[in-house]
Amino acid sequence: MFSSLTRRTQLNSQRFSRLFSTQHDERLTRLRQVMTELPKPLDAFVVPSEDAHQSEYTADCDNRRSWISGFTGSAGCAVITSSEAALFTDGRYFLQASQELGPKWKLMKQGIQNVPTWQEYLGSLPTNSNIGIDPSLITAADAKQLKQNLATRGSHLVSISNLVDMVRDDRPSRPSNPVKIHHEKYAGQDHQSKINQLRIALDVRKCQGTVISSLDEIAWLLNLRGSDIHCCPVFFAYCIVTQQETMLYIMNKGRDNLSKNVVEHLNKAGVQLCDYDDVFEDLKETTGQFMIDSNTTSYSILQALGSDRVCDASSWVSDAKAVKNEAELAGIREAHKRDAAAVCRHFAWLTNTLTQGTTIREAEAAIHLEEMRKQDPFYVGLAFDTISGTGPNGAIIHYQPSTINSAIIDPKQVYLCDSGAQYLDGTTDITRTFLFDGQPTDFQKRAFTRVLQAHISIDQAVFPKETTGYQIDSWARQPLWQDGLDYRHGTGHGVGAYLNVHEGPHGIGSRPIYKTKPLKPGMVVTNEPGYYEDGQFGIRIENVLIVQPKAVPYPSETPFYGFEHVTFVPMGRRLLDQTLLTRENREWFNKYHKECRDVLEPLLKGDSATLQWVEQQTETI
Amino acid sequence: MFSSLTRRTQLNSQRFSRLFSTQHDERLTRLRQVMTELPKPLDAFVVPSEDAHQSEYTADCDNRRSWISGFTGSAGCAVITSSEAALFTDGRYFLQASQELGPKWKLMKQGIQNVPTWQEYLGSLPTNSNIGIDPSLITAADAKQLKQNLATRGSHLVSISNLVDMVRDDRPSRPSNPVKIHHEKYAGQDHQSKINQLRIALDVRKCQGTVISSLDEIAWLLNLRGSDIHCCPVFFAYCIVTQQETMLYIMNKGRDNLSKNVVEHLNKAGVQLCDYDDVFEDLKETTGQFMIDSNTTSYSILQALGSDRVCDASSWVSDAKAVKNEAELAGIREAHKRDAAAVCRHFAWLTNTLTQGTTIREAEAAIHLEEMRKQDPFYVGLAFDTISGTGPNGAIIHYQPSTINSAIIDPKQVYLCDSGAQYLDGTTDITRTFLFDGQPTDFQKRAFTRVLQAHISIDQAVFPKETTGYQIDSWARQPLWQDGLDYRHGTGHGVGAYLNVHEGPHGIGSRPIYKTKPLKPGMVVTNEPGYYEDGQFGIRIENVLIVQPKAVPYPSETPFYGFEHVTFVPMGRRLLDQTLLTRENREWFNKYHKECRDVLEPLLKGDSATLQWVEQQTETI
Repeated sequence: MFSSLTRRTQLNSQRFSRLFSTQHDERLTRLRQVMTELPKPLDAFVVPSEDAHQSEYTADCDNRRSWISGFTGSAGCAVITSSEAALFTDGRYFLQASQELGPKWKLMKQGIQNVPTWQEYLGSLPTNSNIGIDPSLITAADAKQLKQNLATRGSHLVSISNLVDMVRDDRPSRPSNPVKIHHEKYAGQDHQSKINQLRIALDVRKCQGTVISSLDEIAWLLNLRGSDIHCCPVFFAYCIVTQQETMLYIMNKGRDNLSKNVVEHLNKAGVQLCDYDDVFEDLKETTGQFMIDSNTTSYSILQALGSDRVCDASSWVSDAKAVKNEAELAGIREAHKRDAAAVCRHFAWLTNTLTQGTTIREAEAAIHLEEMRKQDPFYVGLAFDTISGTGPNGAIIHYQPSTINSAIIDPKQVYLCDSGAQYLDGTTDITRTFLFDGQPTDFQKRAFTRVLQAHISIDQAVFPKETTGYQIDSWARQPLWQDGLDYRHGTGHGVGAYLNVHEGPHGIGSRPIYKTKPLKPGMVVTNEPGYYEDGQFGIRIENVLIVQPKAVPYPSETPFYGFEHVTFVPMGRRLLDQTLLTRENREWFNKYHKECRDVLEPLLKGDSATLQWVEQQTETI
Repeated sequence: MFSSLTRRTQLNSQRFSRLFSTQHDERLTRLRQVMTELPKPLDAFVVPSEDAHQSEYTADCDNRRSWISGFTGSAGCAVITSSEAALFTDGRYFLQASQELGPKWKLMKQGIQNVPTWQEYLGSLPTNSNIGIDPSLITAADAKQLKQNLATRGSHLVSISNLVDMVRDDRPSRPSNPVKIHHEKYAGQDHQSKINQLRIALDVRKCQGTVISSLDEIAWLLNLRGSDIHCCPVFFAYCIVTQQETMLYIMNKGRDNLSKNVVEHLNKAGVQLCDYDDVFEDLKETTGQFMIDSNTTSYSILQALGSDRVCDASSWVSDAKAVKNEAELAGIREAHKRDAAAVCRHFAWLTNTLTQGTTIREAEAAIHLEEMRKQDPFYVGLAFDTISGTGPNGAIIHYQPSTINSAIIDPKQVYLCDSGAQYLDGTTDITRTFLFDGQPTDFQKRAFTRVLQAHISIDQAVFPKETTGYQIDSWARQPLWQDGLDYRHGTGHGVGAYLNVHEGPHGIGSRPIYKTKPLKPGMVVTNEPGYYEDGQFGIRIENVLIVQPKAVPYPSETPFYGFEHVTFVPMGRRLLDQTLLTRENREWFNKYHKECRDVLEPLLKGDSATLQWVEQQTETI
């Protein structure tokens, strides 16, 4: 359904779009009908993209926003009123959303001047409006803020069970796939001691308990992994931890998806199994103060507890999970080395095949890359759907090639590939941008080189303790800004240890939470500046970094930190404008490629084609 | 009372300190007595450094915090309990405060880990404490926050008239110096049209009126200037603007300090004169919603209005004042050129005199610099007391040489001079750091060069619309951080147009407000990174900049901005480590010094000694 390069595909795509949008028109009509038929009719209904666990990626049964609107990106919120249907999303998705949304939908580009947020939009509806929302799909903090804003207009936020689920007759059931133990040799800490530390944190805050709803937090705390959400090794559950007890709320009390081994593993830490659907009723039965992160916990949990029992604090599990221990870091380093070898095998093949004139489609390239990774004995699956975009498709920041009829990769156009995998010992995420053949334009070279300089700027960062990713984000943008260029996404996100590829709470970028989360040794973060020329090409260069203490020439009592990169794949050079590089840039480039060679050569023994590619790609400039 | 270089001065200084601290001990005892004798005794009393107008610099009658504690710096808050006396201040003042505070006082270094803020300190007092404060000396926002925090401990914030004023028998009366018209040729806009614009802003927010308490905002709005506060061209007043009326609350209704001309000037815009002390009673008589910036307006104003009548919004006057118009910018440019010539006359004289072996004390140098500036027909006075520090005194960030017995400037030590003046057409602020003779240490050279690189980094900044000074602050720190160095102050502050040298709301640094105030064309801001080695030397290089639209190689619909520097004084070169400079650094350095020569030569005609100094100091490197 994406724009593509051949006329034939364009026609197909248009026909498909028409069918698609008719279907979505009907869904909209049915939803509006339900809105008016309620005992207390709604003037607007909000459909966020998250599930009840505030997951960024969701299972099919929770894909409410994409089901109603047609927009399939990972971030965005839909608001349906009697006369309008509006979809709010950010710069990563402007192009994709404009292609996927039907004509009945209005795209609201977040971050563009004078475009309201969905909250502001609700505030601009007539006074005394009734605005419905499923309270499990909005955070407690957002709900509180929204209620306050709406109150100034005399409007009400109405908590209601999900209307999209009511009109969605084809809704799949919630998955309940087998849960596996994440072994301590990779986790680096047993689950009992994690629970003990959490109890100490509760004690410090004088809290009786906490409820954890983020799926990756539960997986981390209990050293378990699942596969209920595509590409995310998590399983559907809630977890209540009190000073005395630990309760895991899981589908059918785990009868379908917990093996004897897993049940024993949980027993060892005294974890009781309860039914997924009982969590809200059971929360009402608890007593004492509960520690809740209102920025990541749903409004329905707050409602179940009652706001006077809530002690609002940054999630201890999220903060603890973000700082990886030595075992996790060792796994992450190893996983990235093996992943780099697989990625190089793929790019060597792709380069050779394309320059020999063979036709390869974007989706075929993605599948080949997956095949290379699958050969790893620790491979579990993809960390996200591979972004494989030729020419203009590379400018769609979260592009996914259609499996049916994706574009043919033009070796003379800029090609962007962003991919990652889940291994038992770590999660990878890497983007490379190549030109396989022909001459780049001056502008393409300039943009690529500025992005490279942005990447180097973060890679070489040195900063004192307490510095946040918000503060250094501008270091990456500086080389681009001086040319009048920029990119409409963050510079980096946290990465899980065999967990979600997007992991909080820290990151490098302008999100408000990044202002409050200093970068600490052991944190993992991506470094992925880019540049996108809509309709032309996209460039992004991404490595994964670990925050590390850094020796400085003049040490003081203030610790200084920097980054260790763990991704070792050549960055390409056909797009490089060497005249723009400083001496320091050039030294970094050569040093990095020497490191790549040193890491890759032992892993690629016997694979002469890939070794030759690596050698060419790592020559000194 | 500052540390100085000769043994004799040290002895004098110690004796003086002892006398001083006995006096402050007595004051503390008297204050504590009053605290316990109140009908409702206080467990703590808070003494902020600001006056009722939230002024950074205060008149003698309002110097409550320095009177009680002995600490004379411009920022800090004192808290007195029955058993402790604590002074909270930031990194600029750690050294100065430790030297000025008596032994009964505890210095609380803000920004150092595990050191509580004064608000946190109050929260750590026993539960159910009564904490007294003069509500005119705290902002409405801070009071609200503080009350909420204290409530969780069962403690109370008690509004009370100022206890320091009660025990201070030598309190001078409030000044009421003549007020003058700031002519429209410098202001660029008449006061009636400013008031009209303010009324439109009130109308947009559906407000009936506003009360302005910041003295520089009143001076700007009415195109008037005063001299009630040392170095600040402001006068004591409040101003109420409603849709119908403008009332100026001024000492004795202006009978003592407003000439016939000024009264006519005010009449032209329909401004009514009222008595300074009547403002709170009159506010109680007003009706309708009032627009108030709770971050800059006192709690007592909020109390007079009643919180339900307050529409909290960023101060329109502050925001409008920050963006200078063309007439103001022209004045600022001219004032800085003439100021640069005066500063060069001084530095040429100082260099020649010191290298000839003549003894010059820090205070003498400051006086000579003032003499040079006084020759300007537009000169009004200093913008702040000149910081003139040799060797270790340069490391005291806001150092002022004692007028009685300041240190002798050692030409072989690093000398730091930060100074500025008020001219009818603009306010200047410049810091230069020189070594007059001898060889610098490698570390001194490295630190100077890193500070220069930090300065260049901001001077050359290019950034898109909506970028804040918070975001680019790290650009200045990057060259220092890579060596493990840093400075404990912001990189830049706004500067008034013949108004306060520290002017909000924008700036370059980590203050929370800087995150919310994008840099806009017409804003004036300093660029003053530094490095301070306690007990050794201080380095700072400061120019004044104007935010300007910037042409970029690849223009888009997003405007990009950069800076125009208006300060033209050579930066010194004896401390420069040329091996650390990049090619781009060197080009900037040479270009800047060429500009200095071009600006200065016509202004220094006939002054061969200064011209020779300028020539030497601007040679190409």
